[in-house]
Amino acid sequence: MDKIEATSEGGRRARGGAAARRQARTGQKPLSLPFVTRKLPPTDILSAEAIEIIEANADTLMEEIGVEYREDAEALKLWREAGADVKGERVHLPKGLCRKLMQTAPRQFTQHARNPARNVEIGGPHTVFAPVYGPPFVRDLEGKRRYATLEDFRNFVKLAYMAPAMHHSGGTVCEPVDVPVNKRHLDMVYAHMSLSDKPFMGSVTAPERAADTVRMAQILFGEEFVDRNCVVTSLVNCNSPMVMDATMLGALKVYAKANQATVISPFIVGGAMSPVTVAGTLTQVLCEATSAIAFTQLCRPGAPVIFGTFATAISMQSGAPAFGTPEPAQVLLGAAQFARRYNLPFRSGGALTGAKLPDAQAAYESANTLWPAMLGGVNFMLHAAGWLEGGLVSSYEKFVIDCDQLAAHQKMAAGVDMSENGQAMDAIRAVGPGSHYLGCDHTRANFQTAFHVSNVADNNSFEQWELEGAKRTEQKANAIAREWLAMHEAPMLDPAVDEALKAFIRQRKDSMPDAFT
Amino acid sequence: MDKIEATSEGGRRARGGAAARRQARTGQKPLSLPFVTRKLPPTDILSAEAIEIIEANADTLMEEIGVEYREDAEALKLWREAGADVKGERVHLPKGLCRKLMQTAPRQFTQHARNPARNVEIGGPHTVFAPVYGPPFVRDLEGKRRYATLEDFRNFVKLAYMAPAMHHSGGTVCEPVDVPVNKRHLDMVYAHMSLSDKPFMGSVTAPERAADTVRMAQILFGEEFVDRNCVVTSLVNCNSPMVMDATMLGALKVYAKANQATVISPFIVGGAMSPVTVAGTLTQVLCEATSAIAFTQLCRPGAPVIFGTFATAISMQSGAPAFGTPEPAQVLLGAAQFARRYNLPFRSGGALTGAKLPDAQAAYESANTLWPAMLGGVNFMLHAAGWLEGGLVSSYEKFVIDCDQLAAHQKMAAGVDMSENGQAMDAIRAVGPGSHYLGCDHTRANFQTAFHVSNVADNNSFEQWELEGAKRTEQKANAIAREWLAMHEAPMLDPAVDEALKAFIRQRKDSMPDAFT
Repeated sequence: MDKIEATSEGGRRARGGAAARRQARTGQKPLSLPFVTRKLPPTDILSAEAIEIIEANADTLMEEIGVEYREDAEALKLWREAGADVKGERVHLPKGLCRKLMQTAPRQFTQHARNPARNVEIGGPHTVFAPVYGPPFVRDLEGKRRYATLEDFRNFVKLAYMAPAMHHSGGTVCEPVDVPVNKRHLDMVYAHMSLSDKPFMGSVTAPERAADTVRMAQILFGEEFVDRNCVVTSLVNCNSPMVMDATMLGALKVYAKANQATVISPFIVGGAMSPVTVAGTLTQVLCEATSAIAFTQLCRPGAPVIFGTFATAISMQSGAPAFGTPEPAQVLLGAAQFARRYNLPFRSGGALTGAKLPDAQAAYESANTLWPAMLGGVNFMLHAAGWLEGGLVSSYEKFVIDCDQLAAHQKMAAGVDMSENGQAMDAIRAVGPGSHYLGCDHTRANFQTAFHVSNVADNNSFEQWELEGAKRTEQKANAIAREWLAMHEAPMLDPAVDEALKAFIRQRKDSMPDAFT
Repeated sequence: MDKIEATSEGGRRARGGAAARRQARTGQKPLSLPFVTRKLPPTDILSAEAIEIIEANADTLMEEIGVEYREDAEALKLWREAGADVKGERVHLPKGLCRKLMQTAPRQFTQHARNPARNVEIGGPHTVFAPVYGPPFVRDLEGKRRYATLEDFRNFVKLAYMAPAMHHSGGTVCEPVDVPVNKRHLDMVYAHMSLSDKPFMGSVTAPERAADTVRMAQILFGEEFVDRNCVVTSLVNCNSPMVMDATMLGALKVYAKANQATVISPFIVGGAMSPVTVAGTLTQVLCEATSAIAFTQLCRPGAPVIFGTFATAISMQSGAPAFGTPEPAQVLLGAAQFARRYNLPFRSGGALTGAKLPDAQAAYESANTLWPAMLGGVNFMLHAAGWLEGGLVSSYEKFVIDCDQLAAHQKMAAGVDMSENGQAMDAIRAVGPGSHYLGCDHTRANFQTAFHVSNVADNNSFEQWELEGAKRTEQKANAIAREWLAMHEAPMLDPAVDEALKAFIRQRKDSMPDAFT
């Protein structure tokens, strides 16, 4: 019932996209596009035979080589009880065990937002866009590259709230390095909760910070609600090749036991952390992802979990990762096929680039991950906007440019309207050979919503564009980012809840000395 | 037999891509990538039901409204004899007639180049990239926007010859406005024939210029060879909605009768020249394209012909066409499905953009047509590199940036290597958990060809990039364009053939006064 409502709501509101953008521009409360509901069929890059080979290879490696679960006696105990052959920290997984354990994970779930209109469906034909995650630097609106601050963090939360096609507030939209490392998660989670009413992600840098996130979610949503529903989605990277480390395992266990979602993502620079080939990388991704996904179900059967893949390719010249190249796109499409095979929501993609500026390299590279992500049927797309410089920089300008692309992809994914109005037979009859459609009834009735309207692209004549200052894309984006920040108004939060959150944060901050490493 | 050789040749040489680029950089004769052979399945955006509806609607309109064939008594006569109901210049086409006539068109054909190693296969799983077509302006290497000259034309032919992933020399790579309009086609065709040995396109601006193109091709290839083989592919746009004009019909007839290929392309700004909806536009595309394709078969059954679609969307704000938006991408994917349904090669796509500079807008918009073009299984991709400003400008810098993307798409389309080497099981076994693949045997054996290497993207550290001058993508592309032009050496042409071509051009130029309109 929930799903059907969400879908039809999605369909209805998607057509309000232009209105939402207008409203956003004119300073009223921003309307959001709902999560994407895809009508395009997914692209299968692997043949049925290739799927069988890679799965069999992964089975062999999981049994023969195994996966290391480091510094976590509880994890080893759970695996031993589940039937794995544990030698030291090496967990050897009998063929098929992970696939069997993964069956209790939901194929689709709702992540609740404090504003129910912003709830998102994760899985199935849906795609949820979430902002850039993790950069220690920003490229600010004065064009300066510098360390990120809490002020920047709050700004990116505001931008994500204002952007119509951003469905999620994300997590570490940038790393606020001016706040002690052991306390910043409290300010980050509070920013998501107070400056936005979109769903958000939790801290994973230590088990106690994950626990703080859950505690704050309980204050916001109520303890019972949190135990029954997903209100936080958090990012758990595997340590490739074939290692789960104590920090990640700690966070994973906290969230899974609290019935909150984790995104299990092998984080791979191909050629360094996996073989240089696509099939080899996919085999390793399968070992890492399925073992950790199975482990979430050992922690709490039924806990929501997302099959994730983050793959790039190393530049054999510079040793740096290269983004937007074909091989990681192939890994993405292949991993997506396995996620579908296992009935799991899938995370990948984003507007990834190694470029230092939001220029042609940045856009081409970003498009080269956005497209396969949409085609692969990604359900949760982290880094969907704002990423620059291989993930070292959150860019205000690129955030705005990317969000425009997300709105276009959302329209693309909605498919072709085959209604009578869509077929337009009367229009073609009325206009006839050698005439034009500019003033006809059908055009006038449909033009406001017929085409995606970009807010950063310039389609004027050369002369008009020159007259307006011959602006580059990023200059237009800069003005929009300033406008969104100026227009942002925090959505109403119950003052009692707000006070309780603040009290919790004060108490936690007072309980420990500042730490900066 | 020919096809099999071409494909296996393609497979072998595709792996030489990095070597080709190295060779191109180091000043030796440039090696080309062969045409693309796609391993990815095409994306079907239309359901079987949607296909039936649109085809039935097109059938209704072709019979009821008809298509105008203007100022061409021979065309009307041919249609009347074929069973159409001709009223004045309006050709009413009985249901199914065009589909029946189209059956004599080949589903795939070879376009021969004067160097047989550069022959291209048009149709089936193959994609051929061809340069930008038509702009009266260039943005030159000094960053100046100005009218194009014959010197620019020759430069773009040289760039297309040097670019490894450009399989075709194209046609009007820019409009050389310094040469009289009634004589420039001779210089253009000669530039393609002498400065390159890749296949090329012919003139369509008047029937006698098409005839000059065929005559020059006969001098180059021999009369009998030309009558039996396709050596020129030429662009015939429909005059949407629902009109074929005398100029285009004249060129079409010359080429079809000479057994040369035409690309039949409805050229549509959606909302102006077709309905504002995707399904309505597809219906009109089907009427226009299938009627003109059928007409080529009336001129000469078996003449090679390509189903083309060029669609964009009008900006209801400025009246200018917008590029890289979702709706034209949907039209492209839908039209591609119909081309497959009718067993015809398909033309669409290109690096299309309305941007004035090769910036983020240019790249994002271009990617948003390149991706659906590859997914839709486009066989002949005109405008694959160099297009700027809605087709008004050929850009040297964007040409180079786009060619890098084409090489990436070619690698993407090749699919996943599932050989034992691709599976990399021994590498994963040898490396094991917690280690890395940087120095292992498998990496060393494969790293030179494993990943697409961009020649314009910067993947160095921020510090290194700053040290090297903090260059934008277009600055790197500028240097490469200069290098390619400096390195270009015209491929050997038989001096007797060259003299015969020059004599023909002299004779034709002397036969008429200069005309500039």
